Amino acid sequence: MTKRPEISRRQFVGSAISAATMAALPLSNLPRSREKEPPSGSAAVGASTGFEWKDEGVLNLVKSPHAKLRNVPIHAVTIASGFWAARRQVNVEKSIPSMEKLLESNGRMDNFLRLAGKSDAPQRGPVFSDSDVYKWTEAAGFALQSAGRPELRNLADKIIKEVVAVQEPSGYLNTYYVGDRAKDRMTPEVQRWGHELYNIGHMIQGSIAYYRATGDRTLLDAGIRFVDGFLLPNFGPGPDKKPIFSGHPEMELALIELYRTTGDKRHLELAGYILQGDDRIKVPHRGYVYHFCGIPFTSRTHLEGHAVRAMYACCGAADYYLETGDATYWKTLNTLWDDLVNHQMYVTGGVGARSDGEAFGDVYELPNFTAYGESCAAIGNMMWNWRMLAATGDAKYADIIERALYNGINSGMSLDGTLYCYRNPLGFDPSGGDRIRNPWYDVTCCPPNLERTFASLPGYFYSTCADGLYLHLYDNSVLDWHLENGTPLKVQQKTNYPWKDGVDITVTPETPVEFTLYLRIPGWSDHAQVTVNGKAVSGVTPGEYLALRRKWEPGDAISVKFDLTTHTIEANPRVVDDYGRVAVQRGPLVYCLEQLDQPEGVALADVRLDVNQKFSSPFQEEFRDDLLGGIVALKCAGAVDEKSSSRAGLYFRYRPETSKKHATTLTFIPYYAWANRASTPMQVWTPAVNA
Amino acid sequence: MTKRPEISRRQFVGSAISAATMAALPLSNLPRSREKEPPSGSAAVGASTGFEWKDEGVLNLVKSPHAKLRNVPIHAVTIASGFWAARRQVNVEKSIPSMEKLLESNGRMDNFLRLAGKSDAPQRGPVFSDSDVYKWTEAAGFALQSAGRPELRNLADKIIKEVVAVQEPSGYLNTYYVGDRAKDRMTPEVQRWGHELYNIGHMIQGSIAYYRATGDRTLLDAGIRFVDGFLLPNFGPGPDKKPIFSGHPEMELALIELYRTTGDKRHLELAGYILQGDDRIKVPHRGYVYHFCGIPFTSRTHLEGHAVRAMYACCGAADYYLETGDATYWKTLNTLWDDLVNHQMYVTGGVGARSDGEAFGDVYELPNFTAYGESCAAIGNMMWNWRMLAATGDAKYADIIERALYNGINSGMSLDGTLYCYRNPLGFDPSGGDRIRNPWYDVTCCPPNLERTFASLPGYFYSTCADGLYLHLYDNSVLDWHLENGTPLKVQQKTNYPWKDGVDITVTPETPVEFTLYLRIPGWSDHAQVTVNGKAVSGVTPGEYLALRRKWEPGDAISVKFDLTTHTIEANPRVVDDYGRVAVQRGPLVYCLEQLDQPEGVALADVRLDVNQKFSSPFQEEFRDDLLGGIVALKCAGAVDEKSSSRAGLYFRYRPETSKKHATTLTFIPYYAWANRASTPMQVWTPAVNA
Repeated sequence: MTKRPEISRRQFVGSAISAATMAALPLSNLPRSREKEPPSGSAAVGASTGFEWKDEGVLNLVKSPHAKLRNVPIHAVTIASGFWAARRQVNVEKSIPSMEKLLESNGRMDNFLRLAGKSDAPQRGPVFSDSDVYKWTEAAGFALQSAGRPELRNLADKIIKEVVAVQEPSGYLNTYYVGDRAKDRMTPEVQRWGHELYNIGHMIQGSIAYYRATGDRTLLDAGIRFVDGFLLPNFGPGPDKKPIFSGHPEMELALIELYRTTGDKRHLELAGYILQGDDRIKVPHRGYVYHFCGIPFTSRTHLEGHAVRAMYACCGAADYYLETGDATYWKTLNTLWDDLVNHQMYVTGGVGARSDGEAFGDVYELPNFTAYGESCAAIGNMMWNWRMLAATGDAKYADIIERALYNGINSGMSLDGTLYCYRNPLGFDPSGGDRIRNPWYDVTCCPPNLERTFASLPGYFYSTCADGLYLHLYDNSVLDWHLENGTPLKVQQKTNYPWKDGVDITVTPETPVEFTLYLRIPGWSDHAQVTVNGKAVSGVTPGEYLALRRKWEPGDAISVKFDLTTHTIEANPRVVDDYGRVAVQRGPLVYCLEQLDQPEGVALADVRLDVNQKFSSPFQEEFRDDLLGGIVALKCAGAVDEKSSSRAGLYFRYRPETSKKHATTLTFIPYYAWANRASTPMQVWTPAVNA
Repeated sequence: MTKRPEISRRQFVGSAISAATMAALPLSNLPRSREKEPPSGSAAVGASTGFEWKDEGVLNLVKSPHAKLRNVPIHAVTIASGFWAARRQVNVEKSIPSMEKLLESNGRMDNFLRLAGKSDAPQRGPVFSDSDVYKWTEAAGFALQSAGRPELRNLADKIIKEVVAVQEPSGYLNTYYVGDRAKDRMTPEVQRWGHELYNIGHMIQGSIAYYRATGDRTLLDAGIRFVDGFLLPNFGPGPDKKPIFSGHPEMELALIELYRTTGDKRHLELAGYILQGDDRIKVPHRGYVYHFCGIPFTSRTHLEGHAVRAMYACCGAADYYLETGDATYWKTLNTLWDDLVNHQMYVTGGVGARSDGEAFGDVYELPNFTAYGESCAAIGNMMWNWRMLAATGDAKYADIIERALYNGINSGMSLDGTLYCYRNPLGFDPSGGDRIRNPWYDVTCCPPNLERTFASLPGYFYSTCADGLYLHLYDNSVLDWHLENGTPLKVQQKTNYPWKDGVDITVTPETPVEFTLYLRIPGWSDHAQVTVNGKAVSGVTPGEYLALRRKWEPGDAISVKFDLTTHTIEANPRVVDDYGRVAVQRGPLVYCLEQLDQPEGVALADVRLDVNQKFSSPFQEEFRDDLLGGIVALKCAGAVDEKSSSRAGLYFRYRPETSKKHATTLTFIPYYAWANRASTPMQVWTPAVNA
């Protein structure tokens, strides 16, 4: 059954749509934005205040029947100082503003202005250029959910007005398929390659983030107009409508979040239809692989094709499960997740092994130097796991989120916030001329994706559940929210995570109340000590949530101590690229060697790591306040293979004798911080000296 | 100075060109085809008989001032039986005829027929589809240089007539840039991507091979008409002509072989102009990298970009050096060659590490499973080294030719001659769904390229030089040719090469004559014994030519015995993908493991090779007449890592203890023969058991 939304007539900012057209458009019944805001943090779930928009999290799972966990709003978590505070400050002060300027200077806004007669610049950028603007808007929306930044609000308002001004009366909006190209709109070929729905998906996500920040529904209404006015009447199942081929999955998750925002079930059903595929549009087999759409999602048995497409499709499918509880979706999602973590994921949480097609490779195909590991794909990995976590509360998903976030995502933005990685390889040799960090890409999907992720980060720290609260991520922060029963609750974390091993948590419910605090014990921590009010807690298990059920009183103190011993990791021997090598990890951080930190004349390609001490860690830790924004650097004994550097040639008669080596000391830095000083060789996986 | 060719007026078969147009076209002064042929093998170089076409080799270096070595014609070498005879028989009986049928059924001939009004089929195939036909014609031409095959001659005649029938009066010929697309001809963008000159380059190469087989200059004249009538008057240096950007190098070497055929120096000069690049056509930096053209060839410092383009450019540049002696070209060619063999070549002689852009990777980037190693690139490698060898007589180039030929090229065609590899990876896992051998590719460059290579193979066995004869390749064969001084000479080889270690060579000059026989001692043979008439020869050095200077009398007998001990190879430690692994080679053949030859339950990914015996070869050899057309299979002790197969997961805490292993026996087959039975895992590089 499709719920018919009420129709409301509203004034559209900057819209060229006539009142008559408006009257014909089905609009959803959203709470209206108001001038005044409700008292912060006081509204319990379910008690409608007209300001629900303000308290919706990254995902609004308040009514999702198959979500075990529910998001807390971004504004409810303040990340005060420390690891993520520094990154987030750079993000909002440097990255988001500089990216807006780059969008302008690269014609992304001119594309809109031209259609309004305000610019005579020609169309610029690829077919998905509109999405650059929308993703930036989403980053701005998330940033505005955290703190008042009037200049950012004004800038975003202006951009949104310029966007909606050129929406067509039909609801259609795209700056590429106009003029001579208008005839190609939504043709099967353009659905495959033209990114029309991908663009709108990002617009809808951006509009929702902005709406949840400001209550301003200008862009959101434009998204609804596209869906309700253009898409639903003309496309979908049934002989009177044309088929949809998703091309680049993204619209699926956007439609479901739109459903969560509007309550209009047609939005959910359309997402389900797209996830199912419509065989009226046929593409070659490799198309179903590459686009990761067009056949029933539930027929998938492994990850393949374009990694970002696959991750976004999995996000959409997980969203669909959260709303419908469809068991075949759940089974498929778990099959694909097992494929991810058993065969296809880098130790950094990055995914997508191949540059060719920006794609997943074969099982165990995880090359390091040529790793693609697109920033967007790592973000997609995190987003997908966030949904799986919401469905289950299983810490294995949170472990992946943390791994991707601290490593394969975090590496994507330079420490100063102005350069971005598209690829995130696990080994690098600059002699090929590759520049890994750049301010701009003509395909500039990754930079705003990184910006929206860092901006939305407070929303990933906690979840609520029926019987209490989940704590997923550690950093200095204050949660100011409430339990699902409405009891106001503050939780404060004080820590030097991930550099030091302790976290002090203060739990302050408004009144004493019994609930369970689910404390994540990361899988990397071989052991952990937890005390509540100084008393040790038993049953602490790495890779699980520790359920602390008690009557919590204001000021109750939890102390957590993790095992931050640096350890080495080996890969499954079937990963040929890691054979005989180890990676180094300390806490959630994967480390790497950069050439410029090593002794003169010691080439990374020739070093071996001496990690075979059996009774103590071979690593010395050193906090370096002066280095890379402040890091713990690691030193380890190593050996240098003497014959490699000195000889030319590729192939030699094999001699089983160990080649001559000399001792050296190797210095590791966190992977996320690589390539922030100079373009120099880097590697994550290093051969171990044979004992 | 440009030599003005004489103009001759000839009847064009099937041509629509008017007599008036013809009169205006400058045609080169070639010897005319005649009905009767001269007595075989009796014409000395320089003594014009009017049949020089018949005695021109793969390259006609008779007048090339900087060629130390000169080709012998293909017809002069008969490969009677054995390794290459079997491959060549399949090639001419199965591959060439079946490929012709596939060209027909995939519309390649319809593309021509349509323009003659003889077909109403639409254009099919990519922009370079014409080259498929031309490369097939070259394969047919080379095949016809070996032996009378009237049915192949008739088929090729018919195809050539259909091709030249649609050449335009201007000399232009292309089946794609016609009709609405005619306006795009030779625009900078189409020069970059449209393959117009690439197509014609292959046409010229094909026409020359066919001319040298038959004396029929129908297609050759069409090629000359394109160059002299269309290209030279309109394109080239100077303000009155438009610039050329090669797009896909190929025309360069074709033009120089055309020069060697016509004597028209403008053809050489045009090739030099293209190799130099014309900065009136500007492309992004990555374009000069990818296309490997557009900037002076002599400014290149390393191999990069599209591997086939780079190899063909190096062929053209080497040809240019052979004609001009330009020292800067020679220096660049050697710099690039050093880069090839020190950083960029697979142990199979394959080149081009990356699927993405079909390209060279960074230095030492030689992944095995994702290796591209396009068949065409390995062929280009062989062709380039053939030219370097001609310039020098240095055996290091012949070693590369043999390595590529027996391995990375030979793997490209199935044993039954009907399936082809586009990629030639050094590791393979069929679980990704990849089909490695296919009868047809829509980009079908490799199959006819393989066919022309096998068809031309007799031309690579010997060269003449001022003081004698070079013997490059070993197989049962008879050379019936003459020294450069005109003395008729036969050389017979009897051998079971590469399976057995001996070669018996009989040298039969018409009369006793003093000359040097340069006998190639392959670099892989740790030692070799050579006797002449039973008497041992000293100074035999692997990787060099053994200069046997004496007065040779009819029936003189040389006996060669190589060291065919199977050995293992390690790669430079900087090749991360081969670290800790060994490859297996016996004679010129690189070996591999195929899953289906191993004991039940032994997964390739888990095996280790026990090659650490220091005093004897760990390999047992077994001639298997029944297997893969007859091979020497190798067996070696190995170990199976027990933990790999049994555990899921990608990353584990590293434990320095050696994992539990059990013993097994591993069976190797020659790499070229892989994937001829079933789609099963394969690998060339296998970890060695740590001693």
